[in-house]
Amino acid sequence: MTFMEKLEAAWKKSGSLVCVGLDPDLAKMPDCVKGAKYPIFEFNKAIIDATADAVCCYKPQAAYYAGQDADDQLAMTIAYIKENYPEIPVILDAKRADIGATTAMYAKEAFERFQGDAVTVNPYMGMDALKPFLDHADKGVIILCRTSNPGAKEIQDIKLENGEEMFMHVARLASTTWNYNKNIALVAGATFPEQLGAIRKVTGDMPLLVPGIGAQGGDIAAVMKNGLDSNGNGLMINSSRGIIYVSKGEDFAEAAGKAAKELRDTINAYRKA
Amino acid sequence: MTFMEKLEAAWKKSGSLVCVGLDPDLAKMPDCVKGAKYPIFEFNKAIIDATADAVCCYKPQAAYYAGQDADDQLAMTIAYIKENYPEIPVILDAKRADIGATTAMYAKEAFERFQGDAVTVNPYMGMDALKPFLDHADKGVIILCRTSNPGAKEIQDIKLENGEEMFMHVARLASTTWNYNKNIALVAGATFPEQLGAIRKVTGDMPLLVPGIGAQGGDIAAVMKNGLDSNGNGLMINSSRGIIYVSKGEDFAEAAGKAAKELRDTINAYRKA
Repeated sequence: MTFMEKLEAAWKKSGSLVCVGLDPDLAKMPDCVKGAKYPIFEFNKAIIDATADAVCCYKPQAAYYAGQDADDQLAMTIAYIKENYPEIPVILDAKRADIGATTAMYAKEAFERFQGDAVTVNPYMGMDALKPFLDHADKGVIILCRTSNPGAKEIQDIKLENGEEMFMHVARLASTTWNYNKNIALVAGATFPEQLGAIRKVTGDMPLLVPGIGAQGGDIAAVMKNGLDSNGNGLMINSSRGIIYVSKGEDFAEAAGKAAKELRDTINAYRKA
Repeated sequence: MTFMEKLEAAWKKSGSLVCVGLDPDLAKMPDCVKGAKYPIFEFNKAIIDATADAVCCYKPQAAYYAGQDADDQLAMTIAYIKENYPEIPVILDAKRADIGATTAMYAKEAFERFQGDAVTVNPYMGMDALKPFLDHADKGVIILCRTSNPGAKEIQDIKLENGEEMFMHVARLASTTWNYNKNIALVAGATFPEQLGAIRKVTGDMPLLVPGIGAQGGDIAAVMKNGLDSNGNGLMINSSRGIIYVSKGEDFAEAAGKAAKELRDTINAYRKA
């Protein structure tokens, strides 16, 4: 099953557009897991078990594992999802890109070493820097288009000679020549719903990964109005801090499960409306 | 000592503009190191000892370690340089960038876990996505500007509304508002020497990391004509495959040493001319 098929099936089965970001920061984790041999893995495992019936995908953020010397716990986390919830796709959020021979090594990292179903990548170096990812037709390649951070405007909103912004140029490339294996999705931040709407218009039913709700302030109503595809799906709406750090007590997983379900329901209320 | 001071001192002491790229691919390594417990580290160690008197910096490429589950050997490699050649700066080539809280984790990866003196980063997400790197005033932050790969033209050469290309827009931001700690350098590929010259014109004496000679076909004469700073330095001219894989025999390190010295001398002949 390809990433795209797996995502479609997960949308259908879960009835949820929620993506839970697994961004475990030891400094923010509940005391009750801190003493474990693999605290990050134990934390993730509990979060996963509590949220699995309310999500369409998981998105571990590579930086949190790399920065805390915990690559082994990233591998353990993804293996745990594959074993226990094989129907839920896993996106390795790594924002990679380099010259071809080097990207081929990053593809090994994302798809072989860590067994991701999809990876996030950066378009600045052009298509040949993404090709070793794109050549994996069964994997998803999620390209940064309009990101959720304020500084994105310095590059992505810059107007080109043809009057279009840079992020629209990326959206067009990603929808046409770059998408030769039909395995591309795009990142479109919730914090800029008009840009998200413009991206939806040129990409048809391409899936969009939407960061920026919760801590970053994105508005769910505006995301839903601008982002749904023609089937009423098409979105992976990410929440990290808003789900995994709701409680720092022993009930942290239960609280995360509740937050994931509430987010699913809040989103779905707009879907039905 | 800051990265910039260390680089200046290394240019002076070594009389070399050569950067050796440590991109060890197990499939391409000599048989004589393959049996070692840490083959990548043993390979790097021998290359480093053979080239240290002919280089101004080393640049391990993170992807080769991540893709081959060899992060420990990356740490060992950088620690070896720090211990034995503390005067030579080490650039972790990682091309990172993400929202601020995540980039802070990447800064821990690059500067604490792996002890890099500098890191390469991607500008697509704007300045706030680089800030946790830039805030380390003592570290170098080397921003992709005009990369050496053919596909770079799809994004970086796109003309903006003001008539300038995207890479020139990045060069200007990197030379002004983004450079509040005077710790920025730029990547400018050898394969596009005119663009490299345009970057030099707007960046003054900012150091430029120049990939693309050797296997990628960049022309040293054109790089030297367009890239030197006002002191006749200003460049870190990278070679990876052209130095580390010259021989696959037991003389691989000796051959690498010879290749590094030849490259230094070829470059310096243009410097004196």
